[in-house]
Amino acid sequence: MQQHKKDSRNILETFENPNVDREYTIQIRIPEFTCLCPKTGQPDFATLHLEYVPASLCVELKSLKNYIWSFRQVGAFHEAVTNAILDDLVAVLTPRRARLTAEFNVRGGIYTTVVAEYPSPVRDR
Amino acid sequence: MQQHKKDSRNILETFENPNVDREYTIQIRIPEFTCLCPKTGQPDFATLHLEYVPASLCVELKSLKNYIWSFRQVGAFHEAVTNAILDDLVAVLTPRRARLTAEFNVRGGIYTTVVAEYPSPVRDR
Amino acid sequence: MQQHKKDSRNILETFENPNVDREYTIQIRIPEFTCLCPKTGQPDFATLHLEYVPASLCVELKSLKNYIWSFRQVGAFHEAVTNAILDDLVAVLTPRRARLTAEFNVRGGIYTTVVAEYPSPVRDR
Amino acid sequence: MQQHKKDSRNILETFENPNVDREYTIQIRIPEFTCLCPKTGQPDFATLHLEYVPASLCVELKSLKNYIWSFRQVGAFHEAVTNAILDDLVAVLTPRRARLTAEFNVRGGIYTTVVAEYPSPVRDR
Amino acid sequence: MQQHKKDSRNILETFENPNVDREYTIQIRIPEFTCLCPKTGQPDFATLHLEYVPASLCVELKSLKNYIWSFRQVGAFHEAVTNAILDDLVAVLTPRRARLTAEFNVRGGIYTTVVAEYPSPVRDR
Amino acid sequence: MQQHKKDSRNILETFENPNVDREYTIQIRIPEFTCLCPKTGQPDFATLHLEYVPASLCVELKSLKNYIWSFRQVGAFHEAVTNAILDDLVAVLTPRRARLTAEFNVRGGIYTTVVAEYPSPVRDR
Amino acid sequence: MQQHKKDSRNILETFENPNVDREYTIQIRIPEFTCLCPKTGQPDFATLHLEYVPASLCVELKSLKNYIWSFRQVGAFHEAVTNAILDDLVAVLTPRRARLTAEFNVRGGIYTTVVAEYPSPVRDR
Amino acid sequence: MQQHKKDSRNILETFENPNVDREYTIQIRIPEFTCLCPKTGQPDFATLHLEYVPASLCVELKSLKNYIWSFRQVGAFHEAVTNAILDDLVAVLTPRRARLTAEFNVRGGIYTTVVAEYPSPVRDR
Amino acid sequence: MQQHKKDSRNILETFENPNVDREYTIQIRIPEFTCLCPKTGQPDFATLHLEYVPASLCVELKSLKNYIWSFRQVGAFHEAVTNAILDDLVAVLTPRRARLTAEFNVRGGIYTTVVAEYPSPVRDR
Amino acid sequence: MQQHKKDSRNILETFENPNVDREYTIQIRIPEFTCLCPKTGQPDFATLHLEYVPASLCVELKSLKNYIWSFRQVGAFHEAVTNAILDDLVAVLTPRRARLTAEFNVRGGIYTTVVAEYPSPVRDR
Repeated sequence: MQQHKKDSRNILETFENPNVDREYTIQIRIPEFTCLCPKTGQPDFATLHLEYVPASLCVELKSLKNYIWSFRQVGAFHEAVTNAILDDLVAVLTPRRARLTAEFNVRGGIYTTVVAEYPSPVRDR
Repeated sequence: MQQHKKDSRNILETFENPNVDREYTIQIRIPEFTCLCPKTGQPDFATLHLEYVPASLCVELKSLKNYIWSFRQVGAFHEAVTNAILDDLVAVLTPRRARLTAEFNVRGGIYTTVVAEYPSPVRDR
Repeated sequence: MQQHKKDSRNILETFENPNVDREYTIQIRIPEFTCLCPKTGQPDFATLHLEYVPASLCVELKSLKNYIWSFRQVGAFHEAVTNAILDDLVAVLTPRRARLTAEFNVRGGIYTTVVAEYPSPVRDR
Repeated sequence: MQQHKKDSRNILETFENPNVDREYTIQIRIPEFTCLCPKTGQPDFATLHLEYVPASLCVELKSLKNYIWSFRQVGAFHEAVTNAILDDLVAVLTPRRARLTAEFNVRGGIYTTVVAEYPSPVRDR
Repeated sequence: MQQHKKDSRNILETFENPNVDREYTIQIRIPEFTCLCPKTGQPDFATLHLEYVPASLCVELKSLKNYIWSFRQVGAFHEAVTNAILDDLVAVLTPRRARLTAEFNVRGGIYTTVVAEYPSPVRDR
Repeated sequence: MQQHKKDSRNILETFENPNVDREYTIQIRIPEFTCLCPKTGQPDFATLHLEYVPASLCVELKSLKNYIWSFRQVGAFHEAVTNAILDDLVAVLTPRRARLTAEFNVRGGIYTTVVAEYPSPVRDR
Repeated sequence: MQQHKKDSRNILETFENPNVDREYTIQIRIPEFTCLCPKTGQPDFATLHLEYVPASLCVELKSLKNYIWSFRQVGAFHEAVTNAILDDLVAVLTPRRARLTAEFNVRGGIYTTVVAEYPSPVRDR
Repeated sequence: MQQHKKDSRNILETFENPNVDREYTIQIRIPEFTCLCPKTGQPDFATLHLEYVPASLCVELKSLKNYIWSFRQVGAFHEAVTNAILDDLVAVLTPRRARLTAEFNVRGGIYTTVVAEYPSPVRDR
Repeated sequence: MQQHKKDSRNILETFENPNVDREYTIQIRIPEFTCLCPKTGQPDFATLHLEYVPASLCVELKSLKNYIWSFRQVGAFHEAVTNAILDDLVAVLTPRRARLTAEFNVRGGIYTTVVAEYPSPVRDR
Repeated sequence: MQQHKKDSRNILETFENPNVDREYTIQIRIPEFTCLCPKTGQPDFATLHLEYVPASLCVELKSLKNYIWSFRQVGAFHEAVTNAILDDLVAVLTPRRARLTAEFNVRGGIYTTVVAEYPSPVRDR
């Protein structure tokens, strides 16, 4: 089981947002995310839902597919990998807003979903 | 593969809003949008969801069907074509508000949806 | 094809709201609306969703069924007929609030829904 | 066809809210409500959805079942009976908030749902 | 039928939140909760939905499974057990926010769901 | 709780089959069957599915509705009442074939459906 | 309320089956059938499902739409009209096989579906 | 973890089939079966679907509920327990035919269902 | 609007069936078929369902995609094009069995599906 | 990309069928199959449905999970891998009957499912 390299975000390519003036939303659903459990080495599976409002750049879909594919043999916890993917996308795209939802397959009779947003919401407690 | 001509918006016809005084909403779903991928020349497919609040004009449905049909052999990226169709509708209708959602069919295991609104939302970051 | 007579709203009967003090909501779904296309004379079909907060009067259901039935041989455009039915209901009931949603069957590969509210919403552009 | 007696609300029993300090919500769905139409004497059927935030008391479920059952041979209009059941529950529980939704079965091709809240919402027109 | 011991919350284990700076959400669905009815001793079943925003700690899933399992032979009322589980999770995790929804299986033709939040919502009546 | 009278099948009215020469099928779904549990006196509910191939007579729908209604205050076990209703329909209609399926609502966490056919199927064991 | 004229089947037009040698199936779903109840004069609605194996002729769809439309103001019982439409289609097409299923909307809390086949099935009782 | 006692089938009670002459079918769905994994001692869950054609006896539902409940703390493999429950039911009821389908909850990413019939089907290989 | 050339079936490529000895089934669903209406020149859309039992050859999926794509600007009637595609596949694959189902989008309020099999079924009338 | 070793079937473990005398069915659904495309090296995903009637042996689920996992980095065509997995299971279990259905995720807008049975069905053409 390999470590996911910090430079794997270089796999992500971008193209210029064709409508910079309008705040519009791009929703991307990726049902084929898979990585490995860092404890047991066994496969984990998830559907990723990315929703972002582009600033000057949009993510190129083929490179996004390859980036997602780069996690296939990498050990990653649910919470950490969701935040890491959002960090990579924010680093490459600097979007106006972004949200990543990772719905993991059932493990031990329990279904886990992690939802991370950029910028981090600030709410009163 | 042709270029979509800027004057194709002339295909769109309008009729007078029968209730100018009331702010009401017209929702239109078009499951049969198809264009070509500008990179590969292969067909792309989408379901379009248009929702608008008319001002003085409404879009005539038969002309809308013909307008949508005019993209059949045109090369168009997902993000660009969604914004372009909204621009055409806004230019012809000058609606109080409008939103276009384009749900594209899966490509490379990835599902993309683009949502554009008029006027562009203005939110704090 | 007949014209829908302005006095057809007289078909609508009312009864006294049994709980005038409470602002509560009555939702009514009518899947069997049909009228004729004014251009082609061919039948159109819709499901109507009425939601209103009664003031002193409620609409009697049997009379509502007969009122809806009175459109069967009448020529009516989607946008106009939705607004006209809401106008009739408001005229007869003077409700605190009302909203009529008309989901028309597909025509030319396009699905149209019209949503009208009373009082008309007032929003900033 | 009997009249529903005002003291039928005595059927409802309560128990002490085990967490008075926390504002939490109890949702109860009852698909087996039936009463009689006061005009025709024929049976009516509804699914009731009760949602309330308890104050010091919660409703005991078996007594609620018996209370609902007490309407079986009682004549009751849709709007009136929904408001009456909410009144009974509020009288017995004095909840922080409550909402009763009654989805009646189709009659004459028309589906009716009544939604009543306590305290009655106060909104600007 | 045993009493659930106050120290059963010690079954719950935690790990350090890998992204303390971002307010993100973890959603956990557990369809296999079962306990006993304190009145009749008969089994009750529920699906639990936990949603929380972690502060410095996240709940470890295997320990959560074992904690849920510890209720199997314990007598517990719907409202009380939902609040107790939320209390245990809050005591162990001190999350920024948490909500527990317990959907119990039908009993006596009635479906009950209990929804508790931390911190308790404060709303005007 | 009354006994269902043997002559209640007289409620059922018939009309002449308009196409005696063709073996065709009439399917009738009745979601509003209710009777009482003979043990506890509490209400039971079921959806009935009748499917028959008429010979010389068809069942008139309004009389079928009234016949179904006649069970409202009658004590009846699931298995017995399903067979009794089929017997009544066969006695009145003498159909070529008939099948009655009664889907009862959940009781004690258990869902029961009874399926009876005329003529009784004869199969090898 | 008019009588449906025996020559209304002349509305149906045909075209030559392009593959006479192969026994293939054409399935047609028509959700917009409406006629009148001969007793009350009130509208009835149905979804028709036609399935046939053509011999030398296929039914032309636009003429089928017009034929269906010709029942709009005609009084017709469920069982009779289903058999009559099948008779008309068989008379015009002489198909190898045909089946017409008419799913009528709920009336009096009862859902009726009529299924007729050509040639009439012959089964042992 | 206890062993399930061979005499637990004595929990099952019967009543006389009210229609011995007709071969009819009783379908019973039980979503609340739970036992323990004999290897790990952890809980297993299943939905049971029983379908049988009674001979002289029917199973009484309350006793069936108690019988199912008797497995709660018993160690049992999927295949063995499904066959054992069918054996018990056949021993007590001697039905004309019976089939038991046990849909177990997901374990290790794998969903298992076991289907056993009485009498055992005999088919050519 | 072009004519579909008889040699377009040359687009279809094959590979050797890896398990000639076993009669197994390959099911292929293609939601993106589009051609033109020969009468009006307007676009038609369908979902194709192919199911075949290969003999010595299987169809290569990329070539199948290109073959389907070759109908994009071709005029074709529903019944004819379904049979023609099946003919092309049979000519290229000589499968043990094949069935093609073409579900066309709604036109004029009517939904058409064509189902063709190879070899043509032979049934008694 | 590795080749799948012929001895990988040794991963599969068995246990003795607890009911050899009864022909019963075990259905297993595995939504997490993944391998690599032999042409492009890119990941493929499928849901496997196994249904078998055991003779003297049943497959142990944990070993089945590991066996499925062994394909993760192996290049395999859809048709070949489905047949190979069925071959492995038949070799290890010698079941009375078995069927494997592999539903692959969409590729190039096309959905492929392969269904293989043991023993191979023999039908007349």
